[in-house]
Amino acid sequence: MRIIVDAFGGDNAPLEIIKGCALAVEELGLTILLTGNRQEIERVARENGVSLAGMEIADAPSVITMEDDPGDILKAKKDCSMAEGLRRLAAGEGDGFLSGGNSGALVVGATAYVKRIKGIRRAAFAPVMPKNEGCFMLIDSGANVECRPEMLRLFGIMGSVYMQRVMHVANPRVGLANVGVEPHKGGELQHEAYELLKNSPVHFIGNIEARDIPMDAADVVVADGFTGNVILKLYEGVALTLMGKIKGILTKGLKNKLAAALILPDIKQLKKQMDYNEYGGAPVMGISKPVFKTHGSATAKTVKNALRLTAAYAQGDVVGEITKAVAALAEQGGTAL
Amino acid sequence: MRIIVDAFGGDNAPLEIIKGCALAVEELGLTILLTGNRQEIERVARENGVSLAGMEIADAPSVITMEDDPGDILKAKKDCSMAEGLRRLAAGEGDGFLSGGNSGALVVGATAYVKRIKGIRRAAFAPVMPKNEGCFMLIDSGANVECRPEMLRLFGIMGSVYMQRVMHVANPRVGLANVGVEPHKGGELQHEAYELLKNSPVHFIGNIEARDIPMDAADVVVADGFTGNVILKLYEGVALTLMGKIKGILTKGLKNKLAAALILPDIKQLKKQMDYNEYGGAPVMGISKPVFKTHGSATAKTVKNALRLTAAYAQGDVVGEITKAVAALAEQGGTAL
Repeated sequence: MRIIVDAFGGDNAPLEIIKGCALAVEELGLTILLTGNRQEIERVARENGVSLAGMEIADAPSVITMEDDPGDILKAKKDCSMAEGLRRLAAGEGDGFLSGGNSGALVVGATAYVKRIKGIRRAAFAPVMPKNEGCFMLIDSGANVECRPEMLRLFGIMGSVYMQRVMHVANPRVGLANVGVEPHKGGELQHEAYELLKNSPVHFIGNIEARDIPMDAADVVVADGFTGNVILKLYEGVALTLMGKIKGILTKGLKNKLAAALILPDIKQLKKQMDYNEYGGAPVMGISKPVFKTHGSATAKTVKNALRLTAAYAQGDVVGEITKAVAALAEQGGTAL
Repeated sequence: MRIIVDAFGGDNAPLEIIKGCALAVEELGLTILLTGNRQEIERVARENGVSLAGMEIADAPSVITMEDDPGDILKAKKDCSMAEGLRRLAAGEGDGFLSGGNSGALVVGATAYVKRIKGIRRAAFAPVMPKNEGCFMLIDSGANVECRPEMLRLFGIMGSVYMQRVMHVANPRVGLANVGVEPHKGGELQHEAYELLKNSPVHFIGNIEARDIPMDAADVVVADGFTGNVILKLYEGVALTLMGKIKGILTKGLKNKLAAALILPDIKQLKKQMDYNEYGGAPVMGISKPVFKTHGSATAKTVKNALRLTAAYAQGDVVGEITKAVAALAEQGGTAL
């Protein structure tokens, strides 16, 4: 399997990206097509002793940054490493694409260069996040601030396929993020999405309250991008704040430091468990080929994890399964997608 | 100062309610008008040795439950303890009203029996919640699932007055919950609310991201009721999940239990700090007299705290200040409230 990788996406690019790719070549048996400034990639690899075995390079002169407008990937920055990777994915030069760069640009670029699956109107960002035990997919987490009910239905279908085929959750429970569990809760968007999800080929368990999301309420949490973004970021904020408080306790005075020494391995494991960076990133769902976003701050290990997930995204034929599900829906219900 | 109290609001009513009232009479020097079944109140007080000194009772035969439709407070359950209390508040028989009962019924009942402040179109639920250091007000947290921009402006103004007059925060920072800090972030609701808040008599600091809410991003977090409800409940859910994990670590094996013994006082304090129940509850903002909601699960101590805040809500003349601010706005900007 060959994954195309944007060598210049993220804060630690290109060094941590190519180090992560080297790990993936060695440990996962993948081959890699890097996109980006060839000279720079070769220089950084050489200076840091990173082997480029198993990797090819497709030269791309520019980089789209976090400050650039996402639309620039189609205009001023259409020769950037991200755009180059997406075009090569569209041309069939790899089985999937990974970038740690500008998220908005990735959605815009993937939609324009790779195209959406037939029947999918909008791509979604869908991080896999930690919960009490295991993980869940949050879809959408911010690509679509304003959504229509049909979009939420498709998010549920796409999330269900991903959790099944990539995370190996049998019969994933799909829940709609809402302000109460009763079907009449929420606004017009939630009411209509509820009815659509109820009549969809997913294991829809109804509305779920935000309080229950971290406690295994569902395997797929469906939300409009505004709500999903609030969930994603508040989740992180509360966890960081609390872990900061715990750290404060464990470094306060001799007695507490002694206690810290005793429980440090467990605290570290908890921190790791609650750190959504550990999960490697988020698939962009709804694109006709696997596109995966890793964190801007990704280190080599995170990049390797993200490559593993990108490969699983391709191997599980997530795109094929979604295509089938959407086609079946269209046949059933006309064109209301 | 005399506070009217719904003796039958909440899971632990009437016992914990009257115990809390007894504490407030003794420690805060308040007098209390209890509403609810007189015989039952007197029996429970007698059987549990709670003194009813400083309290009067206004008889009310029924109770509105969590299962009742909020609208019932105006119809089938208009003789309930909550409705009785609200009508007596409207009639000037007390300086404020406290209930731990059905939140929806409280908003509907307060709006119908006590009326809103002139110029305020919708009442809001506004819990004061813990953050890294201190607390913030979240307004609205669920009374209004669908909001218009003018409502968000008024939420900001009301929250600012409350934090100033009751929580003694000088020049409270008002932030709009959004998916990014830039003014163009969010949907139409956020764009228009941003402009209105910018031109309001509050210290508006712009958009804030959910990640920063627990880390002292603002003193007043303005949101539509759907988003606010998600924030409120996810906040609680993530904190509970993490504290549960910490508890698991501290009770796992002898070594960890030893550590637990060393840091237990600090962990308990943290738990207390992050427990929003400790803050006693949430004011209903926008009503022409102080109405305060305490938690359904409130114990006597929480009820006493809530009574302290209800009294401060009245003493700080929050209603008068909001009335003035809204009148000034109306004079300035016409009738667009």
